[in-house]
Amino acid sequence: MEIDGHTKLVGLIAHPAGHSKSPALHNTAFDAAKLNARFLAFDVEPDQLAAAVQAIRAFKMLGASVSMPFKQAVIPLLDHLDQTAKLVGAVNTIVNHDGSLTGYTTDGIGFVDSLADNQVDLTGTTMTLAGIGGAGTPIAIQAALTGVQTLNVFNINDPSVANAKHIVQVINDQTTCHATFYPLEDRDQFQAAIAESDIYADATGLGMGKLIDQTLVDDPTWFHPNMTVFDTVYAPATTKLMTVAQHAQVAHIINGQGMLHNQGAAAFKLWTGVPMP
Amino acid sequence: MEIDGHTKLVGLIAHPAGHSKSPALHNTAFDAAKLNARFLAFDVEPDQLAAAVQAIRAFKMLGASVSMPFKQAVIPLLDHLDQTAKLVGAVNTIVNHDGSLTGYTTDGIGFVDSLADNQVDLTGTTMTLAGIGGAGTPIAIQAALTGVQTLNVFNINDPSVANAKHIVQVINDQTTCHATFYPLEDRDQFQAAIAESDIYADATGLGMGKLIDQTLVDDPTWFHPNMTVFDTVYAPATTKLMTVAQHAQVAHIINGQGMLHNQGAAAFKLWTGVPMP
Repeated sequence: MEIDGHTKLVGLIAHPAGHSKSPALHNTAFDAAKLNARFLAFDVEPDQLAAAVQAIRAFKMLGASVSMPFKQAVIPLLDHLDQTAKLVGAVNTIVNHDGSLTGYTTDGIGFVDSLADNQVDLTGTTMTLAGIGGAGTPIAIQAALTGVQTLNVFNINDPSVANAKHIVQVINDQTTCHATFYPLEDRDQFQAAIAESDIYADATGLGMGKLIDQTLVDDPTWFHPNMTVFDTVYAPATTKLMTVAQHAQVAHIINGQGMLHNQGAAAFKLWTGVPMP
Repeated sequence: MEIDGHTKLVGLIAHPAGHSKSPALHNTAFDAAKLNARFLAFDVEPDQLAAAVQAIRAFKMLGASVSMPFKQAVIPLLDHLDQTAKLVGAVNTIVNHDGSLTGYTTDGIGFVDSLADNQVDLTGTTMTLAGIGGAGTPIAIQAALTGVQTLNVFNINDPSVANAKHIVQVINDQTTCHATFYPLEDRDQFQAAIAESDIYADATGLGMGKLIDQTLVDDPTWFHPNMTVFDTVYAPATTKLMTVAQHAQVAHIINGQGMLHNQGAAAFKLWTGVPMP
């Protein structure tokens, strides 16, 4: 569909933004759904964030994607906050209803939908999560909201520990899930938690880039075949953690590609009202 | 060229905007010039104009087109004003240089370039212009700056007469052209002015829409063959005025299509630095 005077805009608000694959993903989907809209990525300087958000209203955009470093900073600039985004304390999707902006987070939905795509049901399960930063927080919240019964959260003893403990508190206060925080330095506790878990999810970012050779679990005997091992990394497609899980003949071994796709699909549906083709 | 994370945006800022043909024109040109940019039209509410202009900076847009009703209102929101835009008192093109916004008007350039495309040289000529509103003002200023020696400006006695007299003053003060204002109601003066002119330009909007059957000149003997008759109207392609000029066997009879195209081409070059293909 050619751009005309009625074409609607969706933008990525991030800094930097040029590397984003979201334009390719969403424009292909707009075309396939025969929607008259385009997605462009905008590299927004931090002092221009408020102007970028106001532009959503001024240009009557369908909405926006929000990425680093604005997922928290954007919250006070919005009119409404979805319940999950409120619990997570972060927004990755903005929807514009006639100038009124609502913030959502679809990262956790991407995680849950990716598991569902692999026939993994979270209801009543025990899950161990390593790393509860930008990726781990929405995973923890959405997993708790979707039916995980027991959630063991491990994080290293760095400045992010305060957020980790806060999120565990939020889950215990606001959901039916029982969450416990553990220091990642306690290797015996970590091994025991994984052993009793249906799902092990790694949201640390280990296994990619300069950390490509690293994994928190290098002993296949820590895993058991009837479990799911999930890694938020999607490049490389098979991380060292996933190789260890393969050696343990783990039933479901899932990388971050499906989570990425599903969080984008969830945002697409929020902007357009129709499923991503 | 597919949209990616580096695709630059140019926007039309107007109200309404959906009818605009500019997206088709400029996106075809971006493609032909192999430039990674897209043009979208934005229907901006008047109370959102400042936010829309700030969005040019926040989204690091190449710039914008400005149309009704914002051509004057946008001026105080810009950092710099091109000399011609300053004389005209209106802006139809904004260029973004690293967050610093400069306003231009290319409507008059479109007129002059359209005449040049028809081998009409303005240097040293006498020109009569009917109507000096939104279209006539940049035509008068640019014609004066480009070499018209004597300019007869006719306007009806309505509230726009104050602007008409002001523009005549500006031309006499700021250019080498000698301009005179006449009331359009003085038909004898009007006929005499046209008789001594090399160019007659009609910027009244008569001859289109509900006024399709109207023309200020319905007697072919008012024209002479060695002249140019220009009508800013482009739909219909041949107005009643142009039919009268045809009966007078006028050498150059030009409608507004070339002016429209050339003002867009001038804006394209300001945004991109390269000629419109």
